[in-house]
Amino acid sequence: MKKPKKDFAKEALKQHKALVGKISITPKARLKKKDDWSTFYTPGVGAVASHLAKHPEDMRTMTMKRNSVAVVSDGSAVLGLGNIGPNGALPVMEGKAVIFKEVADIDAFPIVLDTKTPEEIIETVVRIAPGFGGINLEDIKAPECFYVEAELKKRLSIPVMHDDQHGTAIVVLAGLLNALKVVKKTRKAQVTIVGAGAAGHAVAMLLALDGFTDIRVADREGIINTRRKNLPTHKRALAKLPSTRSAKTLAEAVMGSDVLIALSGPGTITPAMIASMAPRSIVFALANPVPEILPEDARAAGAAVIATGRSDFPNQVNNALVFPGIFRGALDANVSDITDEMKLKAAHALAKLIKHPTATNLIPSVLDPHVAPTIARAVRK
Amino acid sequence: MKKPKKDFAKEALKQHKALVGKISITPKARLKKKDDWSTFYTPGVGAVASHLAKHPEDMRTMTMKRNSVAVVSDGSAVLGLGNIGPNGALPVMEGKAVIFKEVADIDAFPIVLDTKTPEEIIETVVRIAPGFGGINLEDIKAPECFYVEAELKKRLSIPVMHDDQHGTAIVVLAGLLNALKVVKKTRKAQVTIVGAGAAGHAVAMLLALDGFTDIRVADREGIINTRRKNLPTHKRALAKLPSTRSAKTLAEAVMGSDVLIALSGPGTITPAMIASMAPRSIVFALANPVPEILPEDARAAGAAVIATGRSDFPNQVNNALVFPGIFRGALDANVSDITDEMKLKAAHALAKLIKHPTATNLIPSVLDPHVAPTIARAVRK
Repeated sequence: MKKPKKDFAKEALKQHKALVGKISITPKARLKKKDDWSTFYTPGVGAVASHLAKHPEDMRTMTMKRNSVAVVSDGSAVLGLGNIGPNGALPVMEGKAVIFKEVADIDAFPIVLDTKTPEEIIETVVRIAPGFGGINLEDIKAPECFYVEAELKKRLSIPVMHDDQHGTAIVVLAGLLNALKVVKKTRKAQVTIVGAGAAGHAVAMLLALDGFTDIRVADREGIINTRRKNLPTHKRALAKLPSTRSAKTLAEAVMGSDVLIALSGPGTITPAMIASMAPRSIVFALANPVPEILPEDARAAGAAVIATGRSDFPNQVNNALVFPGIFRGALDANVSDITDEMKLKAAHALAKLIKHPTATNLIPSVLDPHVAPTIARAVRK
Repeated sequence: MKKPKKDFAKEALKQHKALVGKISITPKARLKKKDDWSTFYTPGVGAVASHLAKHPEDMRTMTMKRNSVAVVSDGSAVLGLGNIGPNGALPVMEGKAVIFKEVADIDAFPIVLDTKTPEEIIETVVRIAPGFGGINLEDIKAPECFYVEAELKKRLSIPVMHDDQHGTAIVVLAGLLNALKVVKKTRKAQVTIVGAGAAGHAVAMLLALDGFTDIRVADREGIINTRRKNLPTHKRALAKLPSTRSAKTLAEAVMGSDVLIALSGPGTITPAMIASMAPRSIVFALANPVPEILPEDARAAGAAVIATGRSDFPNQVNNALVFPGIFRGALDANVSDITDEMKLKAAHALAKLIKHPTATNLIPSVLDPHVAPTIARAVRK
């Protein structure tokens, strides 16, 4: 596998040392005069505190809750780096907070957790929730992430989204809708998904929900089907997805497929697999920071349309295109949940931003200022 | 009791509605170009994440942890308003975050907790601690606050301070040292403290530590002494403070006292009590937002030196003078604990900022830019 063009690892280490933290706090209330202190702190704030204790509905009109999102991770599945814990997670969550602000003017704050069990994550988030208007779960490993998200959605009345699942699913669906246009295929295309973790699971479920009719998912032990014994709950749903043919191995599944979506880790996709796909094949190799196969290798093996999750290759299918707009819309509409319908609408709205998709222009750039407002509008509807 | 001069309650409600949150997040890393995304997010941030997972000591040089403090409250003792819960606590904690930034350039973030027990507070703070360089506990009721702080100091290697205790104790000691100069008395002055909650307890202990020799503390049931049965642990320490005389009731204790420090709530101090004190008496009425006795009433009853916790009266003895500098010093010196020695040094340094104390100029203003750097320097030593 070749190195990427530029040494971003070295540059990132250098820049992180120079900045010492990627976000800071800015007071919106300024304390220039004595009267400012009396208004924003004691005695004035006492009246606001008393009022809010009696009228929690006004948290939205008088506090930071209106625009704040907690970016929560236990560091158990950071990027493609695995379980590196809360310290390793912090710079990634800071990066997300930067994106939230730059892209959607949301005040997001990183909360990295020193926890051991999903129950501890749930408990902790429920307890810190009163000050937040939304919870973005991040880089929590599967299968724990499914239970954590489901429980938090039940227990909290603010929107909760595990971005690795749904942010990824939305952006993949958007990119795939446009990729199919480029290769002139339809939702009947044979889709093979490699990886049944948080992202793989959510992508498969959202594609099915959108009307895709031929989906197979593979994990480390091969194709997930109803003949496999002792499947955990979330994989049982994957075994029941609509599919036109069975396959025993990953290689057999990929052979003849129109679409290969890899959400696993470096090295799981070989050039030989790509070469075995149907003509005009679509390959999304989305592991970060190192994709399952580099674009140049996929192209050499015959892929017609290629996407990665990285910003230094064309077609960045990255959830950074999605989560800021999703939460912008959810906060503005004061919804208590992010629903499947919102996700589908967001994906279609995002895809439509590219009027004439091509092999190297599937999806808007993360720098495109229309992306977040478009998604937010779709969610608000 | 008369109303304060200006209606800060009304103004505060209006201003809080206008601002909708008193703090916001500002990115220090900007995402203007594709390369910025590659450096601060994927793929670059992966190298930083991997590095920090192996080298936690570099969290201080590469992440926000270096300058971030969690302002944590369960809302069980908000200002003088009692147990009004996390919603009521939020605007106060936001106000503290504003002060942290304006006064000491610290990035503080409010975490208001929906918790039921001290154990839950402890657990939650331990779990969210990895991203923070310090923990400012706030507005947690006594006696739970003592246990919560002690446990967190044991379990975390970052500085933890319950500001209602120690911030208050430091600023009261500083103000009192100068008040004694004004009335030409010494640490042998008879001191009566009303209130044995978080603040009353910490003030009494710090005065004793500084060499005061005559301290009595009263709670709702009267003077705390060793004859009282079933005293909880923290009050047992108060019963053993050095004291030259015994008293059965609060009125009896105040009679003849040189110093009265009220940290209780509105209405506990009557003009008659003030009138019964020794000549050249010092009265600190520190409840917020409504003091135990208004300055004009205390003066009319004969007090020579009067202080409150409010910014709209002279002599604001408020912990806002202390906590920003304490944490600035602790973060800069990378200490794992805020010690008694640091507290004493901070109090004396703060007192010395007023070269020639007078009855209406005991302590620097919260607007004095020298305060935080002076305290930070004292802590770093």
